[in-house]
Amino acid sequence: MSGRLTIIGLGPGNVEQVTPEASRAVAEATFFYGYKPYVDRLGLRDDQQAITSDNREELTRAQEALEKAAQGYHVAVVSGGDPGVFAMAAAVCEAIEAGPDEWRGIELGIVPGVTAMLAVAARAGAPLGHDFCAISLSDNLKPWDLIELRLLAAAGAGFVIALYNPISKARPWQLGRAFECLTAVLPGTTPVVFGRAAGRPDERIRTCLLADASPDMADMATCIIVGSPETRIIRREGQAPLVYTPRSATGPRR
Amino acid sequence: MSGRLTIIGLGPGNVEQVTPEASRAVAEATFFYGYKPYVDRLGLRDDQQAITSDNREELTRAQEALEKAAQGYHVAVVSGGDPGVFAMAAAVCEAIEAGPDEWRGIELGIVPGVTAMLAVAARAGAPLGHDFCAISLSDNLKPWDLIELRLLAAAGAGFVIALYNPISKARPWQLGRAFECLTAVLPGTTPVVFGRAAGRPDERIRTCLLADASPDMADMATCIIVGSPETRIIRREGQAPLVYTPRSATGPRR
Repeated sequence: MSGRLTIIGLGPGNVEQVTPEASRAVAEATFFYGYKPYVDRLGLRDDQQAITSDNREELTRAQEALEKAAQGYHVAVVSGGDPGVFAMAAAVCEAIEAGPDEWRGIELGIVPGVTAMLAVAARAGAPLGHDFCAISLSDNLKPWDLIELRLLAAAGAGFVIALYNPISKARPWQLGRAFECLTAVLPGTTPVVFGRAAGRPDERIRTCLLADASPDMADMATCIIVGSPETRIIRREGQAPLVYTPRSATGPRR
Repeated sequence: MSGRLTIIGLGPGNVEQVTPEASRAVAEATFFYGYKPYVDRLGLRDDQQAITSDNREELTRAQEALEKAAQGYHVAVVSGGDPGVFAMAAAVCEAIEAGPDEWRGIELGIVPGVTAMLAVAARAGAPLGHDFCAISLSDNLKPWDLIELRLLAAAGAGFVIALYNPISKARPWQLGRAFECLTAVLPGTTPVVFGRAAGRPDERIRTCLLADASPDMADMATCIIVGSPETRIIRREGQAPLVYTPRSATGPRR
């Protein structure tokens, strides 16, 4: 008997940014696996059951959810933002590939959501208005050297860079080192946006220049957008500045 | 007198993927500026007015919308997907920066949406499960050399690559050239996902290997996701394969 597993993206945390598709998927499932703060947002019914776990237990969570679905239940795995961006969809795929054959028979659905960088960008202007990349600064699952290589490659080629998982108690020095790397390639006048809880009542969006960016401006719930050399700031009286990257770009810097 | 301008992301085209925030923003505005197919989705009321224009007239459209808002009206500019990703938010910011001072006084709001690569990824598995970038293949506003430089830098550093605006009647050869560039850096076995109309009734998601990827698999409404060397394909009986990029990665390839 093989059930259903739906991986649901809940968006950045504002209920107005949860898609109707995600709301319907939540209404239809019976068992909910996820990081506690995300599951707590759901307002489950009495006939629905939450199984919450810690932030760093993605693979175990994915396996437990797949086991439950393989028993014939309709199971949901919930993610903040979009489940495909540094979140649960990859963990579930990893578990399926390494797991028993029957897990490949589970009906798998993935519901996309508004990922953090889009919500932060919308509050700042249009910093992602041209070619951009997203890099997780967590070196739990990849070597730090690889992260530095990617930061340098991306900045050197003129990509705007969105940094996910910028800092945590267990990873205190990485963000400072990332700013040092970027400063070696980018002008100190490059705009940097620190976005926390975008679209929520406790939202905090802060813009500064790369030369003034400091790790203590971020915490683990912050998404940071580092501009390219083309990124600009428009000052406005009585309103926050607009940060944007023009749609046009000039030739390679050789 | 200074009005309001809201730039609204309508998501990939499935009404279930329009956020409540976007629906509310549509309900509140009076004048709607946008590319005709997007505005046509809105189902406007009799007291709301659509001003549609062609796909390549973003800056003129932004200026007209700002002029209307500056007259005190509540104006909306609509985008498919997310307005901050190769869409109208950057065009409006450009127009504000170059325009009369009073445009900076307009109350500007941006409503994020699910951008195409997220919708395509959700239908394919989790191809964006690790560090990734988004590149527009249009060389209307940037030189082709810069696009090649970015493709090579991104592929060489192990980013998954989402290609927006891959091909059009006016840009027939660029996608083939992009595949050639990528083939010089990536294994021919790298998975490639062609996603068209993700989440819509006419959806078409197709997965192949880079060695077999061909420009005729795409049109202007396709978003293409080119994996990294780490990206994997899980075959499933009776279901489409899952394409995913693991959360972990090994060291830099030197």
